[in-house]
Amino acid sequence: MAGSSFGTLFRITTWGESHGKGVGVVIDGCPAGLLLDESIIQDYLDRRKPGYRKYSTARNEADSCEILSGVFDGKTTGTPISVLVRNTDQHSNDYRDLADLYRPGHADLGYAKKYGFRDFRGGGRSSGRETAGRVAAGAVAAALLAEFGISFRTYVKSIGPVVIKNFDPDEISRNDLCMPDASAAEEASAFLEQCIKEKDSAGGVIECVISGVPCGLGDPVFEKLDANLAKALMSVGAVKGVEIGDGFASAAAKGSENNDPFSADKDGSIRKETNHAGGILGGISDGSEIVLRAAFKPTPSIGKAQKTVNETGNSVRLEIKGRHDPVIVPRAVVVVESMAALTVADALLMNASSNLAGLKKIYS
Amino acid sequence: MAGSSFGTLFRITTWGESHGKGVGVVIDGCPAGLLLDESIIQDYLDRRKPGYRKYSTARNEADSCEILSGVFDGKTTGTPISVLVRNTDQHSNDYRDLADLYRPGHADLGYAKKYGFRDFRGGGRSSGRETAGRVAAGAVAAALLAEFGISFRTYVKSIGPVVIKNFDPDEISRNDLCMPDASAAEEASAFLEQCIKEKDSAGGVIECVISGVPCGLGDPVFEKLDANLAKALMSVGAVKGVEIGDGFASAAAKGSENNDPFSADKDGSIRKETNHAGGILGGISDGSEIVLRAAFKPTPSIGKAQKTVNETGNSVRLEIKGRHDPVIVPRAVVVVESMAALTVADALLMNASSNLAGLKKIYS
Amino acid sequence: MAGSSFGTLFRITTWGESHGKGVGVVIDGCPAGLLLDESIIQDYLDRRKPGYRKYSTARNEADSCEILSGVFDGKTTGTPISVLVRNTDQHSNDYRDLADLYRPGHADLGYAKKYGFRDFRGGGRSSGRETAGRVAAGAVAAALLAEFGISFRTYVKSIGPVVIKNFDPDEISRNDLCMPDASAAEEASAFLEQCIKEKDSAGGVIECVISGVPCGLGDPVFEKLDANLAKALMSVGAVKGVEIGDGFASAAAKGSENNDPFSADKDGSIRKETNHAGGILGGISDGSEIVLRAAFKPTPSIGKAQKTVNETGNSVRLEIKGRHDPVIVPRAVVVVESMAALTVADALLMNASSNLAGLKKIYS
Amino acid sequence: MAGSSFGTLFRITTWGESHGKGVGVVIDGCPAGLLLDESIIQDYLDRRKPGYRKYSTARNEADSCEILSGVFDGKTTGTPISVLVRNTDQHSNDYRDLADLYRPGHADLGYAKKYGFRDFRGGGRSSGRETAGRVAAGAVAAALLAEFGISFRTYVKSIGPVVIKNFDPDEISRNDLCMPDASAAEEASAFLEQCIKEKDSAGGVIECVISGVPCGLGDPVFEKLDANLAKALMSVGAVKGVEIGDGFASAAAKGSENNDPFSADKDGSIRKETNHAGGILGGISDGSEIVLRAAFKPTPSIGKAQKTVNETGNSVRLEIKGRHDPVIVPRAVVVVESMAALTVADALLMNASSNLAGLKKIYS
Repeated sequence: MAGSSFGTLFRITTWGESHGKGVGVVIDGCPAGLLLDESIIQDYLDRRKPGYRKYSTARNEADSCEILSGVFDGKTTGTPISVLVRNTDQHSNDYRDLADLYRPGHADLGYAKKYGFRDFRGGGRSSGRETAGRVAAGAVAAALLAEFGISFRTYVKSIGPVVIKNFDPDEISRNDLCMPDASAAEEASAFLEQCIKEKDSAGGVIECVISGVPCGLGDPVFEKLDANLAKALMSVGAVKGVEIGDGFASAAAKGSENNDPFSADKDGSIRKETNHAGGILGGISDGSEIVLRAAFKPTPSIGKAQKTVNETGNSVRLEIKGRHDPVIVPRAVVVVESMAALTVADALLMNASSNLAGLKKIYS
Repeated sequence: MAGSSFGTLFRITTWGESHGKGVGVVIDGCPAGLLLDESIIQDYLDRRKPGYRKYSTARNEADSCEILSGVFDGKTTGTPISVLVRNTDQHSNDYRDLADLYRPGHADLGYAKKYGFRDFRGGGRSSGRETAGRVAAGAVAAALLAEFGISFRTYVKSIGPVVIKNFDPDEISRNDLCMPDASAAEEASAFLEQCIKEKDSAGGVIECVISGVPCGLGDPVFEKLDANLAKALMSVGAVKGVEIGDGFASAAAKGSENNDPFSADKDGSIRKETNHAGGILGGISDGSEIVLRAAFKPTPSIGKAQKTVNETGNSVRLEIKGRHDPVIVPRAVVVVESMAALTVADALLMNASSNLAGLKKIYS
Repeated sequence: MAGSSFGTLFRITTWGESHGKGVGVVIDGCPAGLLLDESIIQDYLDRRKPGYRKYSTARNEADSCEILSGVFDGKTTGTPISVLVRNTDQHSNDYRDLADLYRPGHADLGYAKKYGFRDFRGGGRSSGRETAGRVAAGAVAAALLAEFGISFRTYVKSIGPVVIKNFDPDEISRNDLCMPDASAAEEASAFLEQCIKEKDSAGGVIECVISGVPCGLGDPVFEKLDANLAKALMSVGAVKGVEIGDGFASAAAKGSENNDPFSADKDGSIRKETNHAGGILGGISDGSEIVLRAAFKPTPSIGKAQKTVNETGNSVRLEIKGRHDPVIVPRAVVVVESMAALTVADALLMNASSNLAGLKKIYS
Repeated sequence: MAGSSFGTLFRITTWGESHGKGVGVVIDGCPAGLLLDESIIQDYLDRRKPGYRKYSTARNEADSCEILSGVFDGKTTGTPISVLVRNTDQHSNDYRDLADLYRPGHADLGYAKKYGFRDFRGGGRSSGRETAGRVAAGAVAAALLAEFGISFRTYVKSIGPVVIKNFDPDEISRNDLCMPDASAAEEASAFLEQCIKEKDSAGGVIECVISGVPCGLGDPVFEKLDANLAKALMSVGAVKGVEIGDGFASAAAKGSENNDPFSADKDGSIRKETNHAGGILGGISDGSEIVLRAAFKPTPSIGKAQKTVNETGNSVRLEIKGRHDPVIVPRAVVVVESMAALTVADALLMNASSNLAGLKKIYS
């Protein structure tokens, strides 16, 4: 089944595996006339680059991108933008020992049953390396959205048991963990040092806030904006939960607490006084900030001994070698932001034909 | 934008609004040869019928379904199955007073901005009534999956602040709240009586456990089984959060705690010893039970006074009349189950062409 | 496989078979604010109604349509428009004798192999009756396009060996064969009388001219406007060939003959001096009239004796009874027009997000 | 609009323009376990390579392909196969003079109106060079189909006014024009020499015969096998007409002539005694050879003087320089074959879930 495309009008198709020749993406449906060059994409890629920050894999990838098509005279032409990132630092031999066994927490068994055999080198297509294509495309989506005044602020809300208590936006880029709370970042670092010592790993929660989204994006029923955001985030490997606005907490609230009252500004524009809804009502953006969260499980590749079996069903004691992140959450911040940007960009384009009056503006 | 279809191979298209002539669904892509008649669909529809259980709206709809096509001699023919449910008990006049104002917690404002005007009668297409089409289709999907030994157990895990403490499967159908814990159901009932007295409403969490799913369903990257389940559930009105397996709790665990060890049965079949993953690894079913949860916000329509504005921006004090559920969660159980069934049915069909050896079985 | 949907943004899903309870369509993605009622759809349905004109089947269907959803206060709401046409005059028993044999020229064998069994009553889903849903949707698409100054003129170009020699647009509605040439219509009538006498049937060619299509519709590569028109027309049962502009004749021309020179009007607008291209260049509309043709094979159901086999492989001499059109071409005129309208409507919506400047008009 | 993808389960996405860095394709949904390496793709690419045969452009492209992903240990893994072909011999300066004018027979005007500006170098995305991606993917589709005994024979049926009179399959690869008739090829060569002398160009017709397709592929209504083949062929630049079986000729025949009688072989297998239908009835393959034809207009780029206008509407006399094929038809043979293979491969996968009995074979 063709499962590597995302979006309807702003549609991306990613390809590539951990230890193949490279990874990449084809971005099809980006409107013509957007200023674009490699540096815009590279900025995003650098945010997920292995080895960029502390606590990330020692794999050393330049992750430098090349735009192969779809841009002319510095602007998008409306035709597909193909972006290529070559793999340069694969150590495939690290994985020979794992070829016939099923790593706990990984998709090895599922791939083997599904396809009859599998590319065992670094998880193949299930590797986190697959997200490079998403991020390259997310950079383009974000550049498009910026033209409409839409922007993103994404950060780590928790690492393992350590949750932020304060919110200082400037702090996000100051610490290695992308946390908007310096003391939480410090505490989380200590927790991660402990994990490393124990050859164990940690997970965490990422929060993304989207500002400037016009009211009316998303479509009723199945193409709700939050439904597509949920799919977008849950499609990222290691994500096990997704929330919009108050999320699971809203299930415990009463209607009178959870409903956001509407009021009008002096200029007549209508807005919500609170934002329990997280910017989406009935699947349609309501003009408030969109707030979403994704829960990441701990990195499944750990050095600590684990119990598993090989293909013939024999028990195996597994201690994973190789270069693995004790936590992938900080590197995943830009992946979450990219998936959110791709979803909103698609919704922006899809909404363009929602009513006759709007459509006539295009063709008049 | 055409947003009323769900699924790729097993694809449904729903239609209809709260106060139109009816609601319905076209199910396209159901394999030929499945035994089907109206009673199979009616059983599912009865589970979400208004007035079926205590605490649900007083609206009195027979919700009797008619299969218009796609079935011949008691079996599906492989061509589209159209199911019609006529509306019979609309009180549209209840909504005249609401025509020009924006109800808190509802999609009124978004619809107005998106479409330029809106069907104000009962929320139109954003009404919970829209789910009748999903449920009719879900019944067909579940009947198909039963042929492959796949079954569902869906229940209410919490209502407002009341969470189940025990699990007795037989209890689910015994109480009005679909809770597998009699004393929690009693406690939740008391909470709801209080809500009714206060003209307020409650939300809750629904859990769905899917048994018998073969290992290998779902596709890498964007068509991950959990990504599609997340979209399926988040597309249900009022859902604000979705979890698979340990969900948000996994973000606080260590890798060594969260990884599920593999072991082999005497017959050589491989299974996980624990199920923190909730039956899905890397987006592919792993052969364990699939466990998912959806958080429902409290019903936004409440009788308690609320603050809002009308279309001209004037402040309005709103006390919603009409027939509304103080809690929709028990009725939504079958909606969650239906969406899960639709997603798994589609994945089952999509996976049929995953490898050459399997495909050759079809054409030999 | 779900094969009953057409279009991406303006998407229709048809359902229903010849001898089931009815036929219908769900139109999803029609922009909000379009004036619509049953009479607009009925006008189109009446043009394909059995028994409406001479030489069409004696089956007596009122074909009266009911809009079940998606319209409020006389305007489309932006949500799915469900249209239902009940079957009323099925004579299913006419088909009992055919239940176990394969009619030449029909899809009986293919359906049997594909699905394992088939609805033998009147061809089931492969019946021409399936087109009622297309035509109901086509009426809506045409009404939408009329808002943008786009109109259709569709007629019969040939019946059997009789080809029109003159073109009088007023004549199209005057004769039973929808031919724009009175003397050709007369000649074709004589040919059809002969066919009836011989218990035989005829085919023909339909031409459709679309005026007012703005330059720029259609997308490069696979979503070319002519590619989608070709699919649209070839998806109509009995169509065996499709042409755009000069079609097959262009294959024999030289470049200097086939290229259409551009020139500018006094107001600076650019147009082609000739129209060999039929209004589409490189898959994109060029501002000229779009000209397309579909070749229909003769009606396969004939009374004349034919040789075939039954399911067990025994030879059978077949003389088809029942009510069949000696020619379906005149009734198919509105089907061709509907498919063209659906294709152009979808292209109109898809093109709305082609460039940044246009998109900004929507959101400013 | 994202228009560069084709197919549902076997889905390709092409990218790249004439004078960018390269062209390529992502093939997503190819079943795992198919033997594949670059040589299989290169064989197909060589058949469309510029300069490979007489009468083709002097542009000198190695067109050597690189598989970047989706293949491991010599077999497809089930994940996307990315193929890259670098451009090496662009002479972009040849096009500077054409930057502000609209070439007759080309999509220049449409692109300009659609996107607001255009990549004028060699037609950008509307260049025939775009087909390299289709052909690379077609090679993979054909390799997959060969596993099921499905094969292709594609050839030139006419060049300009010269139509083949004999059919010798061995002759196809012997002459520069891929014609199965040596004397027609000679005659066509003389015609082309005359075109070259006159700085003019020619078109032609390509025929493709597909053997071994099992009965039952294709889906009713919109996903008919012939509808998708028509779209596939019409999506190739320069194609203006498509036929299946007797095509336009069938419109002039009587039912008794056009219907193909069924008979049974001694082994009980059912087949048609004639094949006017071209192997497809009611949109479903009928077990006979599939026969289809595409009409190509003459190459629009000619050296002969033509009349056109520039962007400001001024008249221009245009004599196109640069390297252009006097006829593209022979090089397009492999493009037609590739599009046919892609369409049939997708239908083969889509049909795998048509009936319950077949689906159970996969999961038993």
